[in-house]
Amino acid sequence: MDDLHSLFYPESVAVFGSAGEGKLANILAGRLLDGGMERVCVINPKGESVREAKGYSSLLDVPSPVDMAVIASPAKTVGSILEDCGKTGAKAAVIISSGFSEAGNANMEREIIDAARRNGIRFIGPNCAGMVCTHGNLVATLETAPPTGNISIISQSGAVGGSFMALSADDGFGIAKFISYGNGGDLTVLELLRYLKGDDKTRVIALYLETVPSGREFMKAVQEVCAIKPVVIVKSGRTNTGRRAALSHTGSMAGADAVCDAALRQCGAYRVDTLQELFEVCKGFGALPPVTGRRISIVTNSGGPGVMTVDRAEMSGLLIQETPDTVKDRLREFLPSFAGLRNPIDLTVEGTGEHYEAAAITALSENDASVVLYIGTPYLKAMPVAKGIASAARATGKPVAAVMQVGADIEESRAYLREEGIPCFSSGERAVSVISAMASYEERRALGSEPRVSDAEPSGRAFGAGCDRLLEPEAMKLLRDNGIQVPEFAFAGSEDEAVASAQKIGFPVVVKVVSPRIIHKSDRGGVALNLRGDADVRGAFAKMREISEGMDFRGVVIYPMLAVGREVIIGLTTDPSFGPVIAFGMGGVYTEVLRDITFRVAPVSRKQALEMIREIKMFPLLRGVRGEAPCDVEALADMIAAFSMLSSKYPDIQEADLNPVFLYERGALAADVRILGKGK
Amino acid sequence: MDDLHSLFYPESVAVFGSAGEGKLANILAGRLLDGGMERVCVINPKGESVREAKGYSSLLDVPSPVDMAVIASPAKTVGSILEDCGKTGAKAAVIISSGFSEAGNANMEREIIDAARRNGIRFIGPNCAGMVCTHGNLVATLETAPPTGNISIISQSGAVGGSFMALSADDGFGIAKFISYGNGGDLTVLELLRYLKGDDKTRVIALYLETVPSGREFMKAVQEVCAIKPVVIVKSGRTNTGRRAALSHTGSMAGADAVCDAALRQCGAYRVDTLQELFEVCKGFGALPPVTGRRISIVTNSGGPGVMTVDRAEMSGLLIQETPDTVKDRLREFLPSFAGLRNPIDLTVEGTGEHYEAAAITALSENDASVVLYIGTPYLKAMPVAKGIASAARATGKPVAAVMQVGADIEESRAYLREEGIPCFSSGERAVSVISAMASYEERRALGSEPRVSDAEPSGRAFGAGCDRLLEPEAMKLLRDNGIQVPEFAFAGSEDEAVASAQKIGFPVVVKVVSPRIIHKSDRGGVALNLRGDADVRGAFAKMREISEGMDFRGVVIYPMLAVGREVIIGLTTDPSFGPVIAFGMGGVYTEVLRDITFRVAPVSRKQALEMIREIKMFPLLRGVRGEAPCDVEALADMIAAFSMLSSKYPDIQEADLNPVFLYERGALAADVRILGKGK
Repeated sequence: MDDLHSLFYPESVAVFGSAGEGKLANILAGRLLDGGMERVCVINPKGESVREAKGYSSLLDVPSPVDMAVIASPAKTVGSILEDCGKTGAKAAVIISSGFSEAGNANMEREIIDAARRNGIRFIGPNCAGMVCTHGNLVATLETAPPTGNISIISQSGAVGGSFMALSADDGFGIAKFISYGNGGDLTVLELLRYLKGDDKTRVIALYLETVPSGREFMKAVQEVCAIKPVVIVKSGRTNTGRRAALSHTGSMAGADAVCDAALRQCGAYRVDTLQELFEVCKGFGALPPVTGRRISIVTNSGGPGVMTVDRAEMSGLLIQETPDTVKDRLREFLPSFAGLRNPIDLTVEGTGEHYEAAAITALSENDASVVLYIGTPYLKAMPVAKGIASAARATGKPVAAVMQVGADIEESRAYLREEGIPCFSSGERAVSVISAMASYEERRALGSEPRVSDAEPSGRAFGAGCDRLLEPEAMKLLRDNGIQVPEFAFAGSEDEAVASAQKIGFPVVVKVVSPRIIHKSDRGGVALNLRGDADVRGAFAKMREISEGMDFRGVVIYPMLAVGREVIIGLTTDPSFGPVIAFGMGGVYTEVLRDITFRVAPVSRKQALEMIREIKMFPLLRGVRGEAPCDVEALADMIAAFSMLSSKYPDIQEADLNPVFLYERGALAADVRILGKGK
Repeated sequence: MDDLHSLFYPESVAVFGSAGEGKLANILAGRLLDGGMERVCVINPKGESVREAKGYSSLLDVPSPVDMAVIASPAKTVGSILEDCGKTGAKAAVIISSGFSEAGNANMEREIIDAARRNGIRFIGPNCAGMVCTHGNLVATLETAPPTGNISIISQSGAVGGSFMALSADDGFGIAKFISYGNGGDLTVLELLRYLKGDDKTRVIALYLETVPSGREFMKAVQEVCAIKPVVIVKSGRTNTGRRAALSHTGSMAGADAVCDAALRQCGAYRVDTLQELFEVCKGFGALPPVTGRRISIVTNSGGPGVMTVDRAEMSGLLIQETPDTVKDRLREFLPSFAGLRNPIDLTVEGTGEHYEAAAITALSENDASVVLYIGTPYLKAMPVAKGIASAARATGKPVAAVMQVGADIEESRAYLREEGIPCFSSGERAVSVISAMASYEERRALGSEPRVSDAEPSGRAFGAGCDRLLEPEAMKLLRDNGIQVPEFAFAGSEDEAVASAQKIGFPVVVKVVSPRIIHKSDRGGVALNLRGDADVRGAFAKMREISEGMDFRGVVIYPMLAVGREVIIGLTTDPSFGPVIAFGMGGVYTEVLRDITFRVAPVSRKQALEMIREIKMFPLLRGVRGEAPCDVEALADMIAAFSMLSSKYPDIQEADLNPVFLYERGALAADVRILGKGK
């Protein structure tokens, strides 16, 4: 991605567009100059200048080389500007101008893409809010210029990115790079992510997305990045019915956002809901050493905020362990007699900066991270506390987050802590949420190098030409050929064949109609259970033929009567963005009423299948409750993993369901199957 | 509550305690003076003055009358100070001094309470952080002095109250009264709530609680207040295992916080989790007219923040309806051509203050409230937008919340909006959460005047002397006597009686052992099902006698064999704070695995019982899924309501369970019962 260097670190920039007071190019040139870019010029028909940025009527007139074009002129002028860039050697462009595909002018967008390719130019936009590279003194945007830091943000919405930078400016914790990619005509979020992965100024990446167009490619890129640095995402449009993908059956029960949510977790991204959280979690990652465990200590000088912090910590999965007696003894040596020692350690109003320091260090000997709360009192200024906190963080090398509330020297102490690499949060609740997010990242990373997003080799077609639905015996055979446990079964086209097969399988048997036009077999009387002899089988065959009158009767499929096991459902669907998706849940009311179902982008490994099984709400039922024997979860995981390969192996499969799967104390059997092709 | 007037509106205040630089009484006197209290004096052994507050060595030396004592002197001095107050006519005291019951000195606390009573003095504290009454120029606290406003806060934690006022000071939206009641020696949260109910300066009450000592009295007080003005609560200690009440069986499955949560909702309070939310929701109530419906319009100049706002709005139960075509036509008349009209109405960067005004007014013609977002752009300053928003709010009289993000004149426009009665929130998500909270308050109020918290008249005792467990036939009789549907049943002390009863009831029957020492009957073989004749009954009786060898065998109870219905559980427990609590849930794994259970403080009306039934997750099972017939929810509601009366009617009942209740298409039957007394 070396070719993106000139995008982020140009030495000279030309701004295109009307340069009159209040006009876009005028403001942009001013922002670039104020941001510290030394060589800025302005190109517009009148050749107007903006402050010290000299004006020209054409890029070709600029005497010295220009590295980057920032374009805010009308859409129709962009193509020829890019041609001029090619002639003069400018290799990067920020196309802020709108009026392209977002306004229905896809052709014009195609033209500028072609012009850029021809001329070896990489660009962001069009229809974007520009970009910032603080380490390159590049402020090519109308949004708030943030302080320099190590968070980078890629945003599908310019305003959201701008608001993120405004939060940074308010807080003081800075930004490395901001990119608003707009229509993504050339550079997309994928390529930008891969660039930031290798960018040593970027320690954490914030993403704001409304759509994930190439879901699987996106997941792979995020997975690569997350091996190196965290990716924190707001993906909005959660509830927008217009964005709900057309997932059928099991998939549609939870809606596409559940798929997106699973996909983001699967590739290692951390999803948050609000811009505030996005900034705070990034600030934690940007400032703190890794959080390698969930045991946290809380040090406070006031009970109430301590209790609220504990509540949230426990709710977010952190561990607030009682201080061990030996550690209490050590604390007693130096803390005031009224101090609470349990965790939170409550220094009370008698606490001093030294108490804070020593208490935090002592508590961190037993914990993985610490949240330290200071609520201003007349007895203790914030600054000594800030110094104590910073010393404790230095002494232990562990993650310490601070909350400084109320008091005259709060701002000063927050700034001091920022310089010392300690992030301050607005409340203990927020601090522990960030710590929990950071612990999650390390936990996922510790899962090892097993790829979480993968593809399987296509191995053929599931359907014959012109066909988009497998008959039940065909589907059962496909399952069996792919290592999925199914009951013994036989297809029979005549009564005699049916009787012979039933005898071979052994009574009692089940007979089901086989007809490409009968979908809901039970509803139409197409399933005969518990047949105990030849006569029963003949009778059932005759009945199946009768109900299939005019429905293209092919015969029957015969199974042994299965022992009833615990019922679960496994489904495969095709998400418009993420492709094949595997779903697992409890059958019946659990799925319909509780939406107790979990998703992964397929295929999944056995290990991932086990994770899926364990994360449904009703998992205790499978593990065994009330003295019941546990179900064979291992066999189920094998089945989920094998089934999850089908869509990749046979790319003509659109969706498939095993409903129900019977789970036994030993083994699992797919008791019914439905496989549909993409043809329909 | 007239006697509290002098607490909030004293004309002269004496501060007790060491008055040296940096000492508590010194700071307090300074805060009072800075807050605008004109007549302040200081009492300490040396008679030291603080600024213009003249010092005396005794209250008795002060020449003019003193209305209130603010006491920060050592605990042991407080009693005699109160006696002096009595002598000089001071009627109110704020006792900040600590060292009373919280430090194990309950006697000393008792003494000051007695001294206050003797002398007709009302006080807050001891061990409190003081109080504020902005309209009375009273700042008797070390916490941040807030601007004047209409939110009042009562806080069990001084630091939390102080942080709340710091939020107010930062935001500018002000406070009417703040009370930190500390140990609650005299004035408790109950009396303070009732005072604030009648306080015309208070429009909304914020509460921070860690414990709810007299749960039922508290609920009644909150219920009274909520008929007049909203109460918003943070109740912390959610997860603190130390605070978990010892609820048995059904109750213990969810933990005491679920009971507290249900109790707060039941009496009409709105519970939030964080201090930030507490302030924001109060600000909404304090600033806006009532939110009388859930349809909201969103007006924005930027897509991304609009989408995030819609997501949160839908998640919090608000309705984002597509703009009707007729309204779109009206919008088209004045909006820029690129504007999005659907809802959110997206004015894009071309929007002006006039567009904001007209769009908000037009959208409000179809909606109950509006959230208006402005994200700064170089094309449009914040101030014209603020003016447009304020005009729209004035013109429609409907609730309008604003979000002003990014831009040079943001602070100024927020201040303008505040003056105009429009609250600003930090994001669209937060604004819609507040609107949703306000809509909830109005919905609960609209439920009408039916008391939600009540008591039943005690009508007797359920248990004989020395007894704390009813035998099954006794318990069944108690149920039947109290209008709860139970199966026909008969007690039989001998084989012959058993046979006679079985014949009368009609075969097949069920026989269960009756012994005060056999609790888990099924586990010990004490239940015989489906007995079809005299011989079966004789055999069962003999077996029951055999298994009760040495277990105080009393006989058997005989029932008809019941048709199996849908199983549910109804439970009564006694919460240490809220008293009798009724629980309802699905039986078996639904309760054990899913915790699908709901609570109310008992007794409940039929209407409340119906609410309980409808709020469990598995309610669709009762309503009928997959073509099954619905269960008789009305009969179930009758049973819950009748059962919920038992603890109040028979105050010697500690806990009781109907497990299971069989629910049928018509009717419901309590199939098993367990009733335990308080004696045990």
